Amino acid sequence: MKVDYKALKQECYQANMELNALGLVIYTFGNVSAVDRKNQVFAIKPSGVPYEILKPEDMVIVDFDNNIVEGQLKPSSDTKTHAFLYKTWSDIGGIAHTHALYSVAWAQAQLDIPILGTTHADHLTKDIPCAPPMNDNLIKGNYEHNTGIQIVDCFKERGISNTEVEMILISNHGPFTWGENAAKAVYNSKVLETVAQMATLTLQINPKAEKLKDSLIKKHYERKHGDDAYYGQ
Amino acid sequence: MKVDYKALKQECYQANMELNALGLVIYTFGNVSAVDRKNQVFAIKPSGVPYEILKPEDMVIVDFDNNIVEGQLKPSSDTKTHAFLYKTWSDIGGIAHTHALYSVAWAQAQLDIPILGTTHADHLTKDIPCAPPMNDNLIKGNYEHNTGIQIVDCFKERGISNTEVEMILISNHGPFTWGENAAKAVYNSKVLETVAQMATLTLQINPKAEKLKDSLIKKHYERKHGDDAYYGQ
Amino acid sequence: MKVDYKALKQECYQANMELNALGLVIYTFGNVSAVDRKNQVFAIKPSGVPYEILKPEDMVIVDFDNNIVEGQLKPSSDTKTHAFLYKTWSDIGGIAHTHALYSVAWAQAQLDIPILGTTHADHLTKDIPCAPPMNDNLIKGNYEHNTGIQIVDCFKERGISNTEVEMILISNHGPFTWGENAAKAVYNSKVLETVAQMATLTLQINPKAEKLKDSLIKKHYERKHGDDAYYGQ
Amino acid sequence: MKVDYKALKQECYQANMELNALGLVIYTFGNVSAVDRKNQVFAIKPSGVPYEILKPEDMVIVDFDNNIVEGQLKPSSDTKTHAFLYKTWSDIGGIAHTHALYSVAWAQAQLDIPILGTTHADHLTKDIPCAPPMNDNLIKGNYEHNTGIQIVDCFKERGISNTEVEMILISNHGPFTWGENAAKAVYNSKVLETVAQMATLTLQINPKAEKLKDSLIKKHYERKHGDDAYYGQ
Repeated sequence: MKVDYKALKQECYQANMELNALGLVIYTFGNVSAVDRKNQVFAIKPSGVPYEILKPEDMVIVDFDNNIVEGQLKPSSDTKTHAFLYKTWSDIGGIAHTHALYSVAWAQAQLDIPILGTTHADHLTKDIPCAPPMNDNLIKGNYEHNTGIQIVDCFKERGISNTEVEMILISNHGPFTWGENAAKAVYNSKVLETVAQMATLTLQINPKAEKLKDSLIKKHYERKHGDDAYYGQ
Repeated sequence: MKVDYKALKQECYQANMELNALGLVIYTFGNVSAVDRKNQVFAIKPSGVPYEILKPEDMVIVDFDNNIVEGQLKPSSDTKTHAFLYKTWSDIGGIAHTHALYSVAWAQAQLDIPILGTTHADHLTKDIPCAPPMNDNLIKGNYEHNTGIQIVDCFKERGISNTEVEMILISNHGPFTWGENAAKAVYNSKVLETVAQMATLTLQINPKAEKLKDSLIKKHYERKHGDDAYYGQ
Repeated sequence: MKVDYKALKQECYQANMELNALGLVIYTFGNVSAVDRKNQVFAIKPSGVPYEILKPEDMVIVDFDNNIVEGQLKPSSDTKTHAFLYKTWSDIGGIAHTHALYSVAWAQAQLDIPILGTTHADHLTKDIPCAPPMNDNLIKGNYEHNTGIQIVDCFKERGISNTEVEMILISNHGPFTWGENAAKAVYNSKVLETVAQMATLTLQINPKAEKLKDSLIKKHYERKHGDDAYYGQ
Repeated sequence: MKVDYKALKQECYQANMELNALGLVIYTFGNVSAVDRKNQVFAIKPSGVPYEILKPEDMVIVDFDNNIVEGQLKPSSDTKTHAFLYKTWSDIGGIAHTHALYSVAWAQAQLDIPILGTTHADHLTKDIPCAPPMNDNLIKGNYEHNTGIQIVDCFKERGISNTEVEMILISNHGPFTWGENAAKAVYNSKVLETVAQMATLTLQINPKAEKLKDSLIKKHYERKHGDDAYYGQ
């Protein structure tokens, strides 16, 4: 029996449109996907279609091995990166990729974004990682698939968890973010861009600005995410 | 007889929505409260509720010892800071807290904002204070209450008045502002952000820019706030 | 017979509202005036009235000796500066004053804005002058009147013409601009802010950026303003 | 028989309005043209007409020798630059010129924009060229015609192709961009401004940021433009 992916496409469509509404992309740059764990597929933005003419039914349904399950259009050129992340990290529900200005600038600078304040610590306790440039063999090979490997390897090497740190910068390229669903992935893209801009301005004002101390990192992260969290309803 | 807090909630709601309209916050960041001195309570934004779905009746009524007097939702996680300030400073009517970009950047830089021009001097005659980081014991303890203490102590140590200087930066965190009512507190958040941006740009253009001289500070402050003020109607 | 200033007030009102629409002011900051040379008066924004509630009939009619000729409200606190400029420079028709970010930043930096490109040269052939800080006696005296003197003296000392250079920065304060009418004065405020932002960015990218060479200054200015101008209709 | 240029004027008008909608110009700055290769003419914005009152029928039809073929208004003062480019490069269909902030800042800095990331490499494989200042004789002569020569010579000297690199900065002035039609020329103006802003921020964050390596340049450019391109539909 044919599965109905209408709701999945709708979730994916709305998250893509939100990416545009938040000013994180121009033209056809960027893409968001939303996963359906039961059926082992995800919906993703079609490649090169402007946000102004995008429709929910344009979303493409793809499985974790990059086979198109449903859809008339070609999926995003970054589809293989999404597939690899869904396959590897079974606890994520949505992925977003943008070309937002400050996030891209830090990626092009090839630097981690240091944790300088509580806006950052409200969301994660680590510097935002910037994955090193891929080696030439991997670039010439299955590039987008290898970008997924690059992300997962960076987290392994640093010993950080993809459920705590829901964002990464790819050197010279830009950010990928994820979360429990597509809307949360987009939220994380906006948080990342905001934290990136705050860090840029802070270091312009005081090039010797120090990182947030451990006690404050812990306090702010735990009041939102700890066992005794008291932020939110 | 039960007190009717409808007008207080409405004042608080409008001030919170204005914070959002002025571009000083994203998502659920930031909060504004409005006090009712007669009944020794204040209305404050509920924790973690997005501005788009916020309603006047969502505002929570809290007394100065942090007891919830009326409301279905949990109040802002910063409520204890507000309570301490209302309890200590009997002459303030509203408090605002934002994560506005330039204000946060100066807080993360751990620097006072120097008085460089008349836009600043139209509102206060001193550098905008940046309170030093709290010590670890206070962070681990009653953190938000201690943030209130941190603010009041900073003013005491510097010998500055909370009716003249209606704003402060908390190191690594961000700004708190206040005023005779909630709308004035929000106004001060916008003024602070504007002055912070002007100071950032000024020092980028001329790292050796000098502070405004005393005669000009006095002239501009007094034409707005002195006994012979002639600004406004 | 009583003169009807309705058209003058309307011109002044529209120019003030344009200042706000162009993003050059917040709250009650800034003011624009429009002159009536025949009757030797000008219309100016009332002091401290927010743009959102401003009405054409609120504009105040003032003569060149600062007497209120018509109006229920107090005129802008900068009125005496406008009066002095209209009295001294008989060829200007409107004056604008803003607290726009980049213009204020250069004023606070106490630096002339160097002529770095053709956007600048399309409007004037000189660096945009920054008048030095006023001495303390003048500040304590008739401050706003003396600000007018400060502007005129700066032009005299440098030997520049107020019909070619229609803008100035006042150290530590901000910009004044003027033109053949109030709309042109506002236009010049926007051009100044744009040129100030371009100069800031240019010197951030290349601190050794050189000034535009004379031949290009002349070419661009003259194709818009020379005897053989061919820009425009 | 008289040729009907209504469709050409409409294409040109829409591209000019898009330039304004994208925030790349203020007032009457900037201009876009669209070519009709069959009839060897192009439509271009009239000089000095604000975007708010611009109408499709205002567009001026000009031939490649700068003769006005149809139109009541004077064409853009940059018309001769457009004419020379259309005459020399037979494969371009539209040209745009803006005074966008970051593009102008790099032009005023007299520096090529280095290729620092994949947003840049998605569109071209080279640094974005900044043509050196014109010599004084050429400025005093047929200036706008010579600007066209300056652009073409810069491409010849560097051995780059106008079909791959569809943009240039003119020292101290600003950007020209082109493409297969007027809409693509405007798209390239927006891409250039975005890449210029990303490069500015990158070098502020890390003054030693390195250029994108060749393998990544090739990969990103070819997935969009190569024989086996897989970006888009």
